[in-house]
Amino acid sequence: MSMADEKFEPGSMNGHRAVVLVSGGLDSATVLAMAKQAGFDVFALSFDYGQRHRFELEAAEKVCRSMGASRHVTLSLDLRAFGGSALTADIDVPKDRADDEMEAGIPITYVPARNTVFLSLALGWAESLDASDIFIGVNAVDYSGYPDCRTEFIQAFEQTANLATKSGVEGSAHWNIHTPLIELTKAEIIREGVALGVDFSLTHSCYDPDKTGRACGHCDSCILRRRGFESAGVPDPTPYVD
Amino acid sequence: MSMADEKFEPGSMNGHRAVVLVSGGLDSATVLAMAKQAGFDVFALSFDYGQRHRFELEAAEKVCRSMGASRHVTLSLDLRAFGGSALTADIDVPKDRADDEMEAGIPITYVPARNTVFLSLALGWAESLDASDIFIGVNAVDYSGYPDCRTEFIQAFEQTANLATKSGVEGSAHWNIHTPLIELTKAEIIREGVALGVDFSLTHSCYDPDKTGRACGHCDSCILRRRGFESAGVPDPTPYVD
Repeated sequence: MSMADEKFEPGSMNGHRAVVLVSGGLDSATVLAMAKQAGFDVFALSFDYGQRHRFELEAAEKVCRSMGASRHVTLSLDLRAFGGSALTADIDVPKDRADDEMEAGIPITYVPARNTVFLSLALGWAESLDASDIFIGVNAVDYSGYPDCRTEFIQAFEQTANLATKSGVEGSAHWNIHTPLIELTKAEIIREGVALGVDFSLTHSCYDPDKTGRACGHCDSCILRRRGFESAGVPDPTPYVD
Repeated sequence: MSMADEKFEPGSMNGHRAVVLVSGGLDSATVLAMAKQAGFDVFALSFDYGQRHRFELEAAEKVCRSMGASRHVTLSLDLRAFGGSALTADIDVPKDRADDEMEAGIPITYVPARNTVFLSLALGWAESLDASDIFIGVNAVDYSGYPDCRTEFIQAFEQTANLATKSGVEGSAHWNIHTPLIELTKAEIIREGVALGVDFSLTHSCYDPDKTGRACGHCDSCILRRRGFESAGVPDPTPYVD
């Protein structure tokens, strides 16, 4: 795990800026709460990348407003031009998969190089803000099939960031890519969020919601979310179709 | 220099796909010609990132068509949301700078993390194409002030790519980020392009063209281009305002 994942004392980062990647899901809402508690001035970044689950973007807006982000930018980035994922292309989202199926290899909902793209854009914004901290809610427990959710990847990206930027060249800063959730279970993330006052009813996880934004209850993301609340012993505020 | 920069025998990569970053300038047109000569099936990628010099994008389209790219995608990416560069924000492009000014530190035309962002998106597309080769026309001679034009940066990105992707995890591929121009002077690049039949009249370099697309003749990019043709002993086909 990166040195950047040390625990912060509350308020210890007052006066520092950080870019936080916010998807509208429960993981990134918890990360935003953690960055705020550390004292960071939070610049939240979301992406409209042609995802099927666009209710995420409305959720991201609500989460940022409710939790006091200083600024929230939603960048349009039409990854559908590339194809290759059930989240952006016209492929059915898998439903009611058993654990062994969810754990076997890389899911078809994988978006090629997504976290590399998101972190790169966060890096560009952070550099123009004179920030050197970026938060991302990757998780190696529930998303073990995604290569870009692993610590080795995050460390390599951090090293690239140090070489990619003006501050890297001038030696004035070292980039910190914070991944505070990387080793937590979904239940632990939910408990942490509850402790920090996150309103999870504002968040959205489903890959395949109905037209009103209700969660399907059966995609991998719904299954993990439901189980997480159950196992955390926290009431699940999500409206499920079924 | 990366191992990926070995010279290719003409046609030796027949049947392989590569993503080539094409800006519309003379460097990337030459890179595209080099990839084609090696035999790659070229998937060209350009960005509409809110740059002031949008004539580049028309130039990119013409270059790709004239040189036989299999596909050309121009991705919209509004980096103006982040601010921080004379190429995207409303700051005057510097003119008629002396050599020592051009060489001193990082120019204000630097776009934060631009090559990291562009390479990440190329990586996403390449992965969905089952390609493992990416070409970028970075140059450490004329752009020594840009951190993301250096070999160390490219090598770090390559390492990140190997950890970021499905093919990296499954161990089936090793990413090659090719930077065939990295140690060439502008005159050498022009001579190489001429040898490969590049029509430089289709390319555009100026940071601050007039309304009809004519080059200003005085920004850093025009100065380097003019001198390059002069020093290569090749007639400069560029229409300059002055």
